Parts: sequence; C-alpha cells; structure tokens
Amino acid sequence: MQVSSISSILKGTPESGQKVRVQGWIRTRRDSKAGLSFLAVHDGSCFDPIQVVVESSIEHYESQVLKLTTGCSVDIEGELKPSEGKGQSVEILASRLEVVGWVDDPETYPMSPKRHTFEYLREHAHLRPRTNVSGAVARVRNCLAHAIHRFFYEREFLYVHTPLITASDCEGAGELFRVSTLDMQNLPRNDKGAVDYSKDFFGEETFLTVSGQLNVESYCQSMSRVYTFGPTFRAENSNTSRHLAEFWMVEPEIAFADLSDCADLAEEMLKYVFKAVLEERADDMAFFAQRVDKEAISRLESIINASFVRVDYTDAIRILEECGEKFEFPVSWGIDMASEHERYLAEKHFKKPVIVMNYPKDIKAFYMRQNDDGKTVAAMDILAPGIGEIVGGSQREERLDRLDQRMDEMDIPKEHLDWYRDLRRYGTVPHGGFGLGFDRLVTYVTGMANIRDVIPFPRTPKNVAF
Amino acid sequence: MQVSSISSILKGTPESGQKVRVQGWIRTRRDSKAGLSFLAVHDGSCFDPIQVVVESSIEHYESQVLKLTTGCSVDIEGELKPSEGKGQSVEILASRLEVVGWVDDPETYPMSPKRHTFEYLREHAHLRPRTNVSGAVARVRNCLAHAIHRFFYEREFLYVHTPLITASDCEGAGELFRVSTLDMQNLPRNDKGAVDYSKDFFGEETFLTVSGQLNVESYCQSMSRVYTFGPTFRAENSNTSRHLAEFWMVEPEIAFADLSDCADLAEEMLKYVFKAVLEERADDMAFFAQRVDKEAISRLESIINASFVRVDYTDAIRILEECGEKFEFPVSWGIDMASEHERYLAEKHFKKPVIVMNYPKDIKAFYMRQNDDGKTVAAMDILAPGIGEIVGGSQREERLDRLDQRMDEMDIPKEHLDWYRDLRRYGTVPHGGFGLGFDRLVTYVTGMANIRDVIPFPRTPKNVAF
Repeated sequence: MQVSSISSILKGTPESGQKVRVQGWIRTRRDSKAGLSFLAVHDGSCFDPIQVVVESSIEHYESQVLKLTTGCSVDIEGELKPSEGKGQSVEILASRLEVVGWVDDPETYPMSPKRHTFEYLREHAHLRPRTNVSGAVARVRNCLAHAIHRFFYEREFLYVHTPLITASDCEGAGELFRVSTLDMQNLPRNDKGAVDYSKDFFGEETFLTVSGQLNVESYCQSMSRVYTFGPTFRAENSNTSRHLAEFWMVEPEIAFADLSDCADLAEEMLKYVFKAVLEERADDMAFFAQRVDKEAISRLESIINASFVRVDYTDAIRILEECGEKFEFPVSWGIDMASEHERYLAEKHFKKPVIVMNYPKDIKAFYMRQNDDGKTVAAMDILAPGIGEIVGGSQREERLDRLDQRMDEMDIPKEHLDWYRDLRRYGTVPHGGFGLGFDRLVTYVTGMANIRDVIPFPRTPKNVAF
Repeated sequence: MQVSSISSILKGTPESGQKVRVQGWIRTRRDSKAGLSFLAVHDGSCFDPIQVVVESSIEHYESQVLKLTTGCSVDIEGELKPSEGKGQSVEILASRLEVVGWVDDPETYPMSPKRHTFEYLREHAHLRPRTNVSGAVARVRNCLAHAIHRFFYEREFLYVHTPLITASDCEGAGELFRVSTLDMQNLPRNDKGAVDYSKDFFGEETFLTVSGQLNVESYCQSMSRVYTFGPTFRAENSNTSRHLAEFWMVEPEIAFADLSDCADLAEEMLKYVFKAVLEERADDMAFFAQRVDKEAISRLESIINASFVRVDYTDAIRILEECGEKFEFPVSWGIDMASEHERYLAEKHFKKPVIVMNYPKDIKAFYMRQNDDGKTVAAMDILAPGIGEIVGGSQREERLDRLDQRMDEMDIPKEHLDWYRDLRRYGTVPHGGFGLGFDRLVTYVTGMANIRDVIPFPRTPKNVAF
C-alpha cells in the first residue's frame, strides 16, 4: 500500500475515513487504562507528529507495542479518523503495526524526549534532527534555500557554480585555508629552501575561496543576471555565536546596474524569502515564535511591510554622533561601524531595516566603485533590527583606469587579476551585487541564538566532528 | 524606461508596435549600402540575439554606431517591429543608442566572432560565456540545476547542506585534498617528529569531502527524504575529458527504501530533468543538436520514453562473456566493469539505459547492504547510451552487526564512525540513495565532449586558473 507523508495527511490527503500507511519514528507513547496506546509518530515532513491509536487487540500488542520507546522506527497501516483530541484534526486507528528498528538500551538513548541544551544537541549533531527544534530548523533552512533559488529563477538569473579551490585571495583578507596534496612529512623545497608549490596538485599555492564574486562577475558581463549559492570559507579564529569557518553564501550580480539597483534587489529578495517561509512553514515558524523567540514571526512581517530606509554613511555617522547614546567604540567619520552602532541605527533610530550606502573607501575592498567625492565608494550594508548586518554589497568599479589606480594604491598585484581587468577592457558595464550569509539568514528567521545550530554539521575552530 | 530581456521580447512581451529598451552586447554589426546598420545584440537571457536596425539619422551614427565591434556593450531604445528577415519574428528600430563600453583594440579582442577551438575558449574561461556555445552551456546547466531542486522540492525532500571540510574519508578512497592553516615553512611537530595536527585549525587532520552521503544519512534517519547538491573533490591525477578535481554532486537519500526504490527514484529524476531541459531550453538544445552533437535531443527523448532495463550484475557479466565482442579488458564475474563493458550493455545490447544491480561486495564500499548470497551487495549503477555510468547508488547496510562485520573485514576504524553506527543503533530503517555527477549530466545533455567545457572554471591537475 502506498505510503503517505504525515504532512500530506495533515493537509487533508488522503481524507478522513480512508485507509492510510505511514512510516516514521516514535516521538512518544502513552498507554491508557482502557487498553489503548497513543503513539506520536513523526517522519520529518512537517512539525506535527500524527497520533496513532493502537488497540490492545492488534497483533504483538504486549510483546511489541507496549515496548515502543522514543526513536523506534515503525511502519503503520490503519484508518484515518477525525480526532477527538484537541490540536489535531485526524488520527490513525492502527490495523497493522510493524516495528522496523528498535532503540538499543532506551535508558541511554541520547535523544530521550526531555529538554536538552543546545550544547548537548550540538555534541549529538547526527541525532539532533530527530528533535522538534532541529527538525524545524532543517525544514526552514530548506524552505529558504528553495525560495532563494526560485526568486532568481523567476527573474531570469543564471545560477553559476563558481570554483571553491582558488589561487587568488579575492578580498586580500588573508584568513585562508590552504588546499594541498603535498606530503607534509616530506615537503618538496626549491633551491631557496621554500616549499615548492609547483610540485603541488595544481602546480601552485591554492586555497579555499572566501567569495565567488570575482568569478561570477565574468558571467555577469555576458549573461546580465547571475548568482552563486555555495559554500565559502574563513579560517578566522572566531569562537562566537555568529561565525562559522565553512558557511553558505548567496551572491547575485547584475549588469547595467548601480548601487541603488543592488539595494532594490536585496530588499526585494529578503521580502520574497520571508514571505515564502511564513507561508510555507507556518507550522515551524509558530514553534519558533512560541519556544525560541517571541518575535520570530512579527519581525519578518514588519520587514515585509516596511520600506527599507536608505541613508548615506556620512549621515548615519552624524546620527550616531549626535544621538547621545554611550557606545563602547567611539564614533567618527571613517570608522568601520561596530555591531552596537549598526543595531542602534536599525533598532532604536529607524526601527526598521536600514541600507547604509557610500562607505569610506579606506575600509572597503579594491573592486568597489569610487564615488566622485574621492573619499567614498558605492558600497552598501543592510542592517536589520535584531541582527545588524545581514547583506553587504557594492557597485563594482567598471572603469579600468580607476580600478588599476586602486589596485596600485592597495598593493594588489595586477598579474593575478589580469582576467578580471579584461572584463573592464572589453565591453565593460556598470554592475554590482551583494553577498548574503545564508546561515545568518537562517538564524535571523528562526531566532536561534547560535549559528552552529542552524547548519547540520558546523565547522568552527577545533571542531570538525562528524 | 523599463528594460526588457531579449528572452521576454522574443517570447512576445512587449508586443510588436510597442516601445522597448534593451541592454546587452554586440555580437555582430552589418552595414547596408542604404545607410542602415544591423546589430545583433545579446544579453544572455536566451540563445538568439535580437536584431536592432539603426538608421543613419540617429545621433552619433558615424562617430559611434559605425565603430561598434563584437563585445561592445550598448543600451538601446526603439520600436519593436515585425521583422522582414527570416528566422526571427521581431526586430527593434532604434531611436536611441548609447555605447556603454567599448572594446579595447578590437583587432586583438579574444572573442572575435570567428570559430574558436574549445582549448582556446578554456584558456579564456573568463570571456567564453560571451560565445554561443558557452552561453548555451550556462543556460542548460542552470536549467538542470533548477530542475533538480524542483524535482526534490515537489516530492517533499529536504535539501541538506552537508560539510565540505571533514576529518573522515568516507569511501576509503585515499585521493584527498588536505585542508590546513599550518605554517608550511615551519610545521609544528610532536615528540615523534610527525606533523602535529592538534595545532591545526580544527585540531586534527582535515580534508575536502568526496561525498556528503554519510552525513546526509543522519538526516535521512529522521527527515525521511533528503538530498545534497554541492561541490565534492577528488585529488586524482586524471587528465581525462571526464574528470574534474572539483565537481558538483547530487546525492538523495530515502528512508524505508530498498535498492529497487532507489532505482525508481533515479529513473524518475533523470526523466524529469531531461523533460525540463527540452521544454525550457529548446533554443539551446536545438543549437547543440545542430552544432555539437546531432543526437543531443533525440537521445534525451528516447530516454524519456524508455523504461530503463534492470539487470543483475551476474546476468550482465554473462551477457558480456557470451556476446562475442572483443574487449580490451577481460570479462569475468568479480570485475569492476570498464567503460567499454558498460557502453556495450547500454548501446549495443539493450540500446537503452540499463540499471545494473547487485555487484560483488569486494569491489564496493563498506556501507552497502549485504545480500543473502554472501557474495554481492545491493548496489546499482545506471549506464546510459553515449556516456556509460551516470548514476551510482546503493541500499545502505542498516543492520549494525553486519555493518560492523564489514568494517572489520575492510579494516575501517570504527571509532571515527561511531556516530554513523549510532544511526543503526537507534530506530534504524532500510534506506538508500545514489550519487549523480552533475557536471557529467551536463556533458551528457549538451553532448559536449569535455567536462571542462561545462563548468565555468574547471579545476584539474596543474590547472587552477581564474
């Protein structure tokens, strides 16, 4: 007999009165004095489990049903009936129940149905998707990823797979993971005693990428609208609740566009994916609002309905200087804003998402377009209440002479980026884009406090378990 | 004025008679004696460029229009009119033309409108999306990626981001890239003189993953239907037209499923994505059929309409032994089939896709489910005419004692995979899945001969350019 997902049953297919078959895992079992057992069975397809009523007359009731514990896997057939309990519309009256897999030593089962700390769940990352909270995170994460792909597909963007292994260090950031196949016990050396990377797999020194942007710009310069969505890496020794060494990033890039177009795109995209998650994952979002962060839903609703404020960096600094608030880090024109400044702007001053535009060139990357004032570049950050920076982007410098000048000033060797300079040599166009840290987006949407709890197997300093 | 994509114009929006604005790049320019110029303008949104007719009365005709060369970027407004030329329905009669970016020294422009070899295009990977062929590949690749995500989304699969950096070597394959932040000039060593990885970023030796399967199995064991779609890595020194060091892989995993369910899923998925590409990228596919591989379309059509043959490995070997064909590599029970054997089965014997099932356990991975015959495991490969193996999968060993026995036999240290063994300890279920090399799929669909031409920036031995 055809198996139905619990999600489809709770949505009304098949209908009450029909025979159904479900396969999943026991969340809880409760036995009544009347000789009935009530099983909550989940299969991952939605937040709610389905209630299965098992009468003592069923085969193996005593030997199996009464021994079921949290985590056992089962295959059940029965009739779908209107439920008498509250909070659920239907339940299954079982006619057949097969235990597919038992739980070894239920007393020590790590995912017992009590409340666990997030630290504990992280240490059991291979089992935590069995819990309400990690299951809900997984479904919301999936929904957001699909919404992002759909948003771009509907707008004729091309998904471009930019490389992960690279010989160039895009941002000049320096915090890179090296990729190598050299024998570490016996490194080849050149005649100066330095490691001889010409003997390495790629014939030169290679790293994991920190961004696909430079590569995707080359596709933008002929396909017009493109984006990447893939893993990026930072070998930063940051043990915080906001940093991962390996994280997923979304980077759209649009041609014939200025900074304001990039801001429009980011605003439209954020609203689109927030709307999608509220519609498609109402069950999980209700759970987050109830158990994790009261404002999980209202925060997204207010963003969907708000027009993002746009403010020049220079004006934002003036607001911070004049606001009378005590900040840990002093404010003056030229600073790279700290989280406290960003949150003050979004949460206290404007009380909605803010797009700060035109930052000082000295704190920004070489490829950002120079404004006519000689001091700023066409960069933007989107600051959202409750999290601070969620998107960072810029218009790119499309004028070869200005790009070269900036590379010289910042000591960026041109020979490695000749191909990038070619894009300005041949049919250059104004263009720009932004980066969205996908894992941070998931923390923002769910209200989860730690980014390590929204990615299946987090990679952080000294931690590469599983 | 609102900009329209060339794709939407050619599909009929806006309609003939209306004003339009397009932005893109010149593919060719042709001047008539009557004092008109015909420009072919592309913007990446579809295969065909749009024809723009420019009369000599337009501003800057002599100083700019007559100097336009391939690759220049332009911004054009005009009226959409029925075209008199054949092969196109509409053209634009320009009322305004702005040159956004010129081509430096058109004589040496690397993407001149003549035919280039694929080797040459590969050396100019940053500019090749401007060509017909690489543009068509980019659109088909995008379409296939979206079709895969859509296929799984519609079937309630969760997209799971499994880790790229890992401490475990899933397949025992050995051909791994090391990931490290240790100072190569000054490696820390322990008291035995060995490299001290406890000082490395993650506190132990780490590598780039060869598969997300083991990790995604943990999500399968509570979410029921899951998949990964991300980059994987092989440090194999294979300089062939079929191998990349960095490639994208799709790996679904389903619970409560046996090998036959995995085969069903793979067959359904392949047919779904082939249908999608024929429908959504008819323009690009027509180009591939015309210029790259005559059978590009018919091959996909015949697969969509065929029922895949399923044959036991043992029977497949017998067919090969008895067929009378001369093979380079001898055939006998127990061999890992070579490409020539796989292609014989798919192309000559069955003349359609073949799913070979139940391979000898000695040539397969430790996690595959052992069959009752004691000799084979529940593994499958899908062999397709024209390419050979396109999908490889298996049912996984869900019985802890059998898994342990196989790990012992194959000398796989259990302590690293305790978490994986836990999945069999707690509510285990029969489950399985497969891996699809996404880049190979793109070569198969387009008929492109070399896998390096279907990924934007290929990584292969001694090659990490761009």
